[in-house]
Amino acid sequence: MNNDKSGNHTVTDYEKIFHPKKLAIVGVSAEGYGFGSGMLSSLLTIGYEGEIFPVNPKGGEIAGRKIYKTIEEIPGQIDFAVIAVAAPLVARSLEDCLKKGAAGAEVLSSGFREIGTPEGRSLEDDIKKVARKGIRVVGPNCFGIYCPQSGLTILPGAEFPREGGPVAFLAQSGGMANDFINIGKWLGLRYSKVVSFGNGADLRETELLQYLGDDPETKVICMYIEGVEDGAAFFDVLKQVTAKKPVIVYKGGLSEAGQRAVASHTASMGGSKAIWEAILYQANVVQVATTWEMAQVSLAFAMLPERAYKGIAVAGGGGALGVAACDAAEANGMELPQLKAETQEKIMAVLPKPGSSAGNPIDVANPGVPPFILKQVLLHAAEEEKVDLQILMQLLYVYKAIQRRENAKSLREATPTIELADMMEDVQKKTGKPAVLVLPNNRQGLNDLDVEEIRREARELFLKKNVLAFENLTDAFHAIGQVSNYYRRRMERTGA
Amino acid sequence: MNNDKSGNHTVTDYEKIFHPKKLAIVGVSAEGYGFGSGMLSSLLTIGYEGEIFPVNPKGGEIAGRKIYKTIEEIPGQIDFAVIAVAAPLVARSLEDCLKKGAAGAEVLSSGFREIGTPEGRSLEDDIKKVARKGIRVVGPNCFGIYCPQSGLTILPGAEFPREGGPVAFLAQSGGMANDFINIGKWLGLRYSKVVSFGNGADLRETELLQYLGDDPETKVICMYIEGVEDGAAFFDVLKQVTAKKPVIVYKGGLSEAGQRAVASHTASMGGSKAIWEAILYQANVVQVATTWEMAQVSLAFAMLPERAYKGIAVAGGGGALGVAACDAAEANGMELPQLKAETQEKIMAVLPKPGSSAGNPIDVANPGVPPFILKQVLLHAAEEEKVDLQILMQLLYVYKAIQRRENAKSLREATPTIELADMMEDVQKKTGKPAVLVLPNNRQGLNDLDVEEIRREARELFLKKNVLAFENLTDAFHAIGQVSNYYRRRMERTGA
Repeated sequence: MNNDKSGNHTVTDYEKIFHPKKLAIVGVSAEGYGFGSGMLSSLLTIGYEGEIFPVNPKGGEIAGRKIYKTIEEIPGQIDFAVIAVAAPLVARSLEDCLKKGAAGAEVLSSGFREIGTPEGRSLEDDIKKVARKGIRVVGPNCFGIYCPQSGLTILPGAEFPREGGPVAFLAQSGGMANDFINIGKWLGLRYSKVVSFGNGADLRETELLQYLGDDPETKVICMYIEGVEDGAAFFDVLKQVTAKKPVIVYKGGLSEAGQRAVASHTASMGGSKAIWEAILYQANVVQVATTWEMAQVSLAFAMLPERAYKGIAVAGGGGALGVAACDAAEANGMELPQLKAETQEKIMAVLPKPGSSAGNPIDVANPGVPPFILKQVLLHAAEEEKVDLQILMQLLYVYKAIQRRENAKSLREATPTIELADMMEDVQKKTGKPAVLVLPNNRQGLNDLDVEEIRREARELFLKKNVLAFENLTDAFHAIGQVSNYYRRRMERTGA
Repeated sequence: MNNDKSGNHTVTDYEKIFHPKKLAIVGVSAEGYGFGSGMLSSLLTIGYEGEIFPVNPKGGEIAGRKIYKTIEEIPGQIDFAVIAVAAPLVARSLEDCLKKGAAGAEVLSSGFREIGTPEGRSLEDDIKKVARKGIRVVGPNCFGIYCPQSGLTILPGAEFPREGGPVAFLAQSGGMANDFINIGKWLGLRYSKVVSFGNGADLRETELLQYLGDDPETKVICMYIEGVEDGAAFFDVLKQVTAKKPVIVYKGGLSEAGQRAVASHTASMGGSKAIWEAILYQANVVQVATTWEMAQVSLAFAMLPERAYKGIAVAGGGGALGVAACDAAEANGMELPQLKAETQEKIMAVLPKPGSSAGNPIDVANPGVPPFILKQVLLHAAEEEKVDLQILMQLLYVYKAIQRRENAKSLREATPTIELADMMEDVQKKTGKPAVLVLPNNRQGLNDLDVEEIRREARELFLKKNVLAFENLTDAFHAIGQVSNYYRRRMERTGA
């Protein structure tokens, strides 16, 4: 909304940028494959909802559409543009888009500051000059914007979900944006807005973060940061935003060599590890170290009720899992409270013997204990005031042995995924406390692709029932701990 | 070999214990399923090579074999026994096995010290008394011994590999032993001996570690420890063994709650986290925190040449991966040395442009760069003295898009796994430096099971060619770092 730095435009029309009704793609080619044609193809596949105007001086047709020879020739005004022409032609194209009323443009082209030459820097300065006149620029050297609700997508991005959701992601790196959406697609993450801003000549981390902080569609903000333009301004906005919603930051290039790599990748300054970690901690930022971790943690933020979690009850088969649960809980600032004798008695009454124990962790002795029994265990454990959240470990691969033993027709028939999903949903409703699944899969041989298929099906089912599921206990405790620590610190700092 | 503590037998016949020619299974049941019958079935499936003598007072037949009514009735001597009778009958069965010449026995039965009653403790003392007379006991409350070379297996373990290998594993927990073998089976770990010793009434961590330290078939020793019987003795043996071969320890129950769980699981004392970590560090033990990490790290120890690695060259498509590589290298005590200008020139000459860079990390710009080009990149990078090891990141899922674009018949046809495997093997031979693959898979939806299948096939192929492969960069650097740190410290401490 603000762009005081430039002074030339005070209102950014983010609505037109994220939900453009009329979109120019400047630099499509009727022959061969380029970024412009690739973007056109992706937008058609994903089902972008507005009108598209391809532009190329040669004219012609592409995908049954007229190619306009100039931007000017497009009938009426445009809202947004994708620019994929050679670097020296970018600034001029932006000028033309501005004249056509575009509120913004994403520049996919590379060949600017990141190549480290005076020409590259000069061409990027030209972009900045046009931007100051009133068109907001995403890029250059970026993959663009993904906004499932309007159907905008980053490159290649043709198969990203059209379904929107609460998670936003900002990254300089387009590869990272792609990775994160792909990981999240499977994990069940759904996105409000993803912006890969590349060199960040104009719109970049600080302004975009501020916008997302106010965006009602965004509940969780993730960022991959290599460097920031203005540390003080960024830190101010970070503090404002984390007081309202969680901000998860993966800071790349914290090592010395990493800083060298950052310089050649997006040409921005990194800053030392100690400074970064201190700043992020002060701002109550949720810090993560890999894309995978960012995806797991943001899924937990998206699905868990907004509060701190302290006491965790863990149920599963096998004593060593219980020990691992205790270690993981403590390492992430939580604990496994001892259950009262009366609760333990109730639980023991429904569990198979021998081999079971109910002290928390609750050892159900046999990994094939049916869901209706597990349900009673979880309902009893949740009665304890000290239990804020429950984790159930389910080894889905054991049903392969059960299938053989019981001569079930298929692994699908032998595995009680639907019963498990219904049970977990019901437990959450009845207890008002989250019940989380952990679904480890140690069977990763070629012969066990059937287990993997069932596990993927089950995971989709659990997500539909609003049941959070993780791959392993460590990931689960880590993600829940991050959620818990964020809300606890926010409460301590802001009282809300 | 020694058992000074008891004084009653000074030589343990480990050959008979791990490679028994005549094996009694005491407590098989002709009807229903029990541990004894389960073990018989597993031994027959895996193809145990010796003679099996089932024992049950009721007699009869099982799996076409005579059931002996008593141990005494078995013709001739026995080498080893599996005991799966009710707890009060165990000591007597062990006496009978001893009389029959058995060097050892594994007791699968539970109901001893772990149940926390005076009867349980007393029954376990009875086992100890018999053990002191000269039969070495594994257990009770354990899943037994897996020794692929003789065909002994732990419960359930019917489908574990018969192929042996360099990795040994010791654990109190039978569930952990199963998990580790199952994970390793897929990863490509092959085992010399795995012992789940449960309550450890007789043979346990210290003696077994000493034995494995001298065992020529074992090159890497892994341990899951909840607690040890005699800390000082264990520490002495640890130091002796780590001077000869790597010992990887996953210490469970380092948290307070974890120690409580340990107490109810194997009834052994845990000890504080700080003490454990200090002791393990002093003994140059490789410390890990999860079963998955233990598997990854032991695979790296099994496959990499025995030395420290400092300078790593990393190649892959996408700049952000390069930044992550630098961070991961530094976090694990390694570095990505800048390549000389002349090396960079040679590499740039073979890479597609624009988008590639050769400063290390080497950005090959396009994730679908064919193996013959990658080969030249790796051969050039390895020429630098500072490069000790190379990592190549390959996103196998990109071949799904390539398959579509090129109308290949199948994903298998489109993915150059064989070329990649041959190339990596050849690079290792020509350069004398390890070349490691990282095969991330972000495509985990139901529609992408074909990618998973190809990836699993590829992984098997890479292992056959002696090419180490990891799931992601973090795991790769972590595992290589553990290997490197162990050999560096061993060199500093012992000069060898």
